[in-house]
Amino acid sequence: MTDQGTRNLNWCAALLDGLIAGGVATLVLSPGSRSTPVILAAQRRAELAIEPILDERSAAFYALGLATAANRPVALLATSGSAPAHWLPAVIEAAQSGRPLVLISADRPPELRGWGANQTIEQAELFVPFARECHDPGPATADPAALKMMRALGARAAAVARGPHPGPVHINLPLREPLVPEETLAPPAAQHRPAPPPPPAAWHGGVPDPHRAEQARALLRGRGLICCGPDAARPGLAPRLWQLAEHLGVPVLCDPLSGLRFGPGGPARIARYDGFLRNPRAREQLRPDWVISLGRTPVSKTLLGWLADVPTLRIDPAARWSDPNHDVALLLDADPAACCDWLAERLDPAPRDWLAHWQQAERRIEAIAAEHLAESPWCEPQLLATLLAHIDPGAGLFSANSMPIRQLDTWAGARATPLRLFCNRGASGIDGQASTLAGLNAAGVPCHGLLGDLSLLHDLSGLQLLQRLDRPCVVLNNGGGRIFDYLPQQGVEGFERLWRTPPPLDIGAVARAHGLAHHAVTGAAEFAASLAREDAAGIIEVRIDAERSRAVHQTFWSRLHEDTRLFE
Amino acid sequence: MTDQGTRNLNWCAALLDGLIAGGVATLVLSPGSRSTPVILAAQRRAELAIEPILDERSAAFYALGLATAANRPVALLATSGSAPAHWLPAVIEAAQSGRPLVLISADRPPELRGWGANQTIEQAELFVPFARECHDPGPATADPAALKMMRALGARAAAVARGPHPGPVHINLPLREPLVPEETLAPPAAQHRPAPPPPPAAWHGGVPDPHRAEQARALLRGRGLICCGPDAARPGLAPRLWQLAEHLGVPVLCDPLSGLRFGPGGPARIARYDGFLRNPRAREQLRPDWVISLGRTPVSKTLLGWLADVPTLRIDPAARWSDPNHDVALLLDADPAACCDWLAERLDPAPRDWLAHWQQAERRIEAIAAEHLAESPWCEPQLLATLLAHIDPGAGLFSANSMPIRQLDTWAGARATPLRLFCNRGASGIDGQASTLAGLNAAGVPCHGLLGDLSLLHDLSGLQLLQRLDRPCVVLNNGGGRIFDYLPQQGVEGFERLWRTPPPLDIGAVARAHGLAHHAVTGAAEFAASLAREDAAGIIEVRIDAERSRAVHQTFWSRLHEDTRLFE
Repeated sequence: MTDQGTRNLNWCAALLDGLIAGGVATLVLSPGSRSTPVILAAQRRAELAIEPILDERSAAFYALGLATAANRPVALLATSGSAPAHWLPAVIEAAQSGRPLVLISADRPPELRGWGANQTIEQAELFVPFARECHDPGPATADPAALKMMRALGARAAAVARGPHPGPVHINLPLREPLVPEETLAPPAAQHRPAPPPPPAAWHGGVPDPHRAEQARALLRGRGLICCGPDAARPGLAPRLWQLAEHLGVPVLCDPLSGLRFGPGGPARIARYDGFLRNPRAREQLRPDWVISLGRTPVSKTLLGWLADVPTLRIDPAARWSDPNHDVALLLDADPAACCDWLAERLDPAPRDWLAHWQQAERRIEAIAAEHLAESPWCEPQLLATLLAHIDPGAGLFSANSMPIRQLDTWAGARATPLRLFCNRGASGIDGQASTLAGLNAAGVPCHGLLGDLSLLHDLSGLQLLQRLDRPCVVLNNGGGRIFDYLPQQGVEGFERLWRTPPPLDIGAVARAHGLAHHAVTGAAEFAASLAREDAAGIIEVRIDAERSRAVHQTFWSRLHEDTRLFE
Repeated sequence: MTDQGTRNLNWCAALLDGLIAGGVATLVLSPGSRSTPVILAAQRRAELAIEPILDERSAAFYALGLATAANRPVALLATSGSAPAHWLPAVIEAAQSGRPLVLISADRPPELRGWGANQTIEQAELFVPFARECHDPGPATADPAALKMMRALGARAAAVARGPHPGPVHINLPLREPLVPEETLAPPAAQHRPAPPPPPAAWHGGVPDPHRAEQARALLRGRGLICCGPDAARPGLAPRLWQLAEHLGVPVLCDPLSGLRFGPGGPARIARYDGFLRNPRAREQLRPDWVISLGRTPVSKTLLGWLADVPTLRIDPAARWSDPNHDVALLLDADPAACCDWLAERLDPAPRDWLAHWQQAERRIEAIAAEHLAESPWCEPQLLATLLAHIDPGAGLFSANSMPIRQLDTWAGARATPLRLFCNRGASGIDGQASTLAGLNAAGVPCHGLLGDLSLLHDLSGLQLLQRLDRPCVVLNNGGGRIFDYLPQQGVEGFERLWRTPPPLDIGAVARAHGLAHHAVTGAAEFAASLAREDAAGIIEVRIDAERSRAVHQTFWSRLHEDTRLFE
């Protein structure tokens, strides 16, 4: 039997065969991870020119021009999330002026859609009513009849795009991981998946009725934890949450965007789980019997993967099924603060040493991190420490997605000094970062920015808005989409041009053209000085040696993985 | 009874009252015409901060940041067409991260939607399924109950946006002209509107059956004309079209984007109608009994308005109801070339002098234009002549919407030398112009660009793609959206900041930051020299004195209006 990566590749190859037979000669793509199988397939077809363009909006208008002048269908490819949404203006133009485009959006597989998984939105109907046809063929299989359908779908999409009523055709392509075939990579570790939990129940309004109360009690037996994802904080919640945790003797895992990690907290607050859950002994020893979930899906993939199959009680007044692991057994659509009180009255405390173990792990990782960074060359972790120390108590920091928010998660820890940390984590897009930062500041929240090179350049129109800011936007220029260096795509053929895509523009020149001051720095002292300048505003471009940074991170994770003193 | 402009204003004022009562304190807008009544209403409310941002995508992410930090709903406003489509990525983010946005898209009134009217798309459901609610309250009326509803709608939109499940709410606002109240403007001339024609019929496939043939014959009696809109040309059509026109003795009005205006043509080809139809005597003498319509809606508003209420036979193999005047009595879904032959066999010729009158008008306007331009200072018309003369026969020119395509329509005339003229005229957006130009060139059509300052800056991400071009993009920098200088909004309070919006960036600095050569020119000789340079590529920024240009155009139109020698 073929592995999933190979199935994906064959699936996409069949689609491209059909498109090429239908006259498609160019694939215009914007870099991304989920779209990898299509790119891998396209690289194997010499008849297909591949054109990478960072900004999907620009890519789509480029394809429109190409299709108009060549009078043949042009294919567009974007990754999952809000990426294909940027095509909409050009899709509308193509629909109304009758230009042949074939839109291929990579998507998460059905089991992740609508469950709060990262970078996942409703994509299948994005272009209704502008696309002439919309297809969603489902995830790849090795079934010959299905592969035949994929070839036919490609040919059909090209034919429909050509006319008699030319226009855009949309193919939404759900792709299951792994995205890269096995032969180029080590096979993923086998996973034990227990039997599925019973179907979840939801309860709407106020506090649960006696029946739900019994259900909650049954669910929350043994050792548990409270997981606070983005926007978990609400007015009045924090003190009652810390009280509940103390009463039960359970840890509260606080996502960097939870609103609970920075500012006064209780002894149950845990922030360094993304570190210590990389240690096999910690993963085993700390495994909980239940989870209470608040807020949206946490940033840490380490945490999320580790929590899979743990029965979950979810509290969300907006009744969102933010549950990509599909473990919610009971959803309480109720006020979280009231729920805390209600649960404190009804649940039994965990064994005495349970919380102590967590606290011990938190302290141990803090010590390892401090030691590791003292020995390591300057890169993001030390930079983050300097930046966080510099921000006034209660002021804000807006972080881009991808690397910056993950590095904040890993390195920032918790602290008593308040900090308002923001990130567009709803669709986790690369888009609109400079504009969002300007908007945050305009609302009276003084806010530094922390972006990557590509996220800055994706929002060129937003740059001029940064003129209004009286504090700087820090841009980590590490030569493109470095998150791909940590993903299985790393090192595949064409990696640099089609995934990592080093920034196509000189950030200094662009900044100055938009009326922004620009300082390029490469080290600790320079960075601190740039931040501290009286007139600090504009862009502080930090040139990061990505290889060095990768080595610092990977050595850290190895240390964590191998640490034997975690529960001494 | 109040006039429509005042009704619009009161309607929008009621909506804003509700929004302000619901906690909205900021309106972030991108400039446009159709949205004028909302802006006029907003200017009258001191409680509402107005923030103009050119690029709708950037505006929406800005509003997102504002709403996040202020934790109150922020209103967004865009004009009709693809403008609100640029909001989609930020709307998705707001939907998924639960940020309160109120999206107000101005729209054309229902009678224009789906009839090929300019800058008109299906807007009402743009944000399904991401908006929490979608509203379309219909055009403004003076009915007190309806005004009460508008106030309530504003308050409701703000409340729904705030939560308990915060997110975006969409209000699509159809607005009928006139958009500005009468008290600040002269009332429009009363118009005679004859009784509506009988409901249209459509015929699909091949050539019509005998019944449709009889219907076509009855429709096309007397003096007619053939109107060729954008993309009317199809392989094999031109010779049979000229033959049909010659046989019938009727003029063929060729839109600049028809594909029939530049290249070999017949004696029936007419290109200067946008000029001579400004003359009252010509409007009267040349009024046709019928129209055959090919292609999409023509660029010339003068032509379109004048053709209102003329019974129309439409030929379109894609069966599109491109009929904003609602005059199509018979739609033939058939091959236009075959239709030409079929009609030539069945129709009687027009009176002998009919075509001669048209040809006379065409020649007369050509002479007036030549005389006028010889006497006038250098601006767009002379520039266009130089540019068109410079482009190799059969090569391409990509024009932006708004002023450039209209000026080409007015001044270019017809010519025997082929030219491939392109323009994104499906939704007529300001968006994606640089990217589309790059795409056209990548398809092997060597293509100059002709953009305005704002259309260039709306597509900043597209600028780097222009590095690949071996010929220049001409940018007419006339200090913002000068088309508004010709519209009723001209001169209203806040005009400069909220409608005309002079370009916020230095075009030279931006071009250089994107690796493009940049030459700024102000006169004829400099412009010709820039075009003729061996290494001509990058941006030729032509600095236009907009007041002078406006005087040149308005004097020309006055001359045409008053010309008495048109039919001597």
